[in-house]
Amino acid sequence: MPVYVAGHKSPDTDAICAAIAYAHLKKKRGMDAVAVRLGDLNPETEFVLNKFGIPVPELMTDATGKKFIIVDHSETTQSPDNMDKGEIVEIVDHHKLGDLTTPNPIFFLSMPVGCTCTVVKKLYDYLGIEIPKEIAGIMLSAILSDTVMFKSVTTTDEDKERAKELAEIAGIADIEAYAMEMFKAKSAVAGKTPRELIFRDFKDYVMSGKKVGAAQLEVVDLSLLADIKDDLYEELKKVKEEGRHSVFLMLTDIMKEATELLVVTDEPSVVEKAFGIPLEGKSVWLEKVMSRKKQLVPPLEKAFAEI
Amino acid sequence: MPVYVAGHKSPDTDAICAAIAYAHLKKKRGMDAVAVRLGDLNPETEFVLNKFGIPVPELMTDATGKKFIIVDHSETTQSPDNMDKGEIVEIVDHHKLGDLTTPNPIFFLSMPVGCTCTVVKKLYDYLGIEIPKEIAGIMLSAILSDTVMFKSVTTTDEDKERAKELAEIAGIADIEAYAMEMFKAKSAVAGKTPRELIFRDFKDYVMSGKKVGAAQLEVVDLSLLADIKDDLYEELKKVKEEGRHSVFLMLTDIMKEATELLVVTDEPSVVEKAFGIPLEGKSVWLEKVMSRKKQLVPPLEKAFAEI
Repeated sequence: MPVYVAGHKSPDTDAICAAIAYAHLKKKRGMDAVAVRLGDLNPETEFVLNKFGIPVPELMTDATGKKFIIVDHSETTQSPDNMDKGEIVEIVDHHKLGDLTTPNPIFFLSMPVGCTCTVVKKLYDYLGIEIPKEIAGIMLSAILSDTVMFKSVTTTDEDKERAKELAEIAGIADIEAYAMEMFKAKSAVAGKTPRELIFRDFKDYVMSGKKVGAAQLEVVDLSLLADIKDDLYEELKKVKEEGRHSVFLMLTDIMKEATELLVVTDEPSVVEKAFGIPLEGKSVWLEKVMSRKKQLVPPLEKAFAEI
Repeated sequence: MPVYVAGHKSPDTDAICAAIAYAHLKKKRGMDAVAVRLGDLNPETEFVLNKFGIPVPELMTDATGKKFIIVDHSETTQSPDNMDKGEIVEIVDHHKLGDLTTPNPIFFLSMPVGCTCTVVKKLYDYLGIEIPKEIAGIMLSAILSDTVMFKSVTTTDEDKERAKELAEIAGIADIEAYAMEMFKAKSAVAGKTPRELIFRDFKDYVMSGKKVGAAQLEVVDLSLLADIKDDLYEELKKVKEEGRHSVFLMLTDIMKEATELLVVTDEPSVVEKAFGIPLEGKSVWLEKVMSRKKQLVPPLEKAFAEI
């Protein structure tokens, strides 16, 4: 029976590329490892896999009776359905420690760096395994995506150095030019419904017992979203009504390095508690905020613990 | 503010020695790290620290407002009191993934090996940090203790190889003779109350919502316990009445490589479900069972999920 390697639901580029890169490493170490995905690819990830000629991983959302290596999260809500009826054999991550547990000891490595592919690169180096050119390309892409070309506060020197090494292996001479090409692909909103855009990168959390959704849409220029912002907000209301206490949608401007945060919540005071700015209307403007993981979720968790 | 490095409650030799060894590594890396303990030392650990001239770590049981590195577990019930009012900055472990969570990304390394000190040895080697002779001695002791001189099913080649390297640094020529010396110290029961013996190595778990205590007493020969077995059982009943659904006490014979399991429970059928042997009377005899982590807890968790 193969071991499936999966990132999180609503996969982003790191969730997909870390799964592919780590599955390759495990195959080289003799494991029958197969990268899978838990949802549709976003346009950025499609661009990346296409660019380096890597096939799209198979969709595999139910863990019943299966073995999984989990990458890029350690949260029940983000892992395959019925994970408790399957088996987790390893976890490789770079997020906060989530609520997944296991009945047996496993290999678990998480590092406070900007991208799971940075951790995977370190494992390749530690084990002395060669990284194929196209795998290096998608790992570099994941680091550029997760760190927003090293501008996110989550970025560490490890990310920058591992990215430089990966660019060399992949034959990418101009990292910045490549990143812009990728971000333009990521910004594609034409022809997509508001629901598709909200769920392009959506994660559910449990904060002080309340179900909270947090989505992020990154674009090279927020003006690209001007025409559809009201439609996004109306759809966000519906998403909230589907059993959530609150939903947050980060509209992140990659170039301005700031986020307009759309909010639908039963408790508007949580926004001021978390960010020091009262919610008046549909959104708040957050300067220098680009990272859901480091700048949105921790202050929200603290605020939810207080209400 | 220092960062405290702590193993689990009811500390065993690995919990104490991994904390001391990892605190030393972090100090060498520039962190103001201080090893602490969450409870009294058992006679084996006393022997080990005394043998290598290492001072007993300070007692520090409340995490309120403090930073901790957690070693040798990742369970709320085994970590410092009020851990949610303090901060976990790292975790290094070799057990099943427990229920601790963090609001921020941290360094977390767990490996399916026999001892936390095996993982710590790998980190020393990876980072190229020299291990002082006396630290090598206590790390070796922890590996010999956790793997019962490489006889426990939890033992891996990693444990054996790292132990050999540590013995060389520590100047221990005859590992087996040293292990026997240590196990004799561990077997000391004279002058101890039944309660002290039960809580020498006691862990609380939550299994399918039920609080379950599991203690282990390892001796070189079970005949050492013949006179006090009834007293241990009577005390175990009291421990069970302190809010637990079940309590298990492993009386493990290191030389025979087997365990007599004393049981007090609301649901005796759980024993047969877990081990295939019906509980008739106070205990069951489990051949080849020496590891609470790998041979007691997983089958019990499965059995509790079924009742």
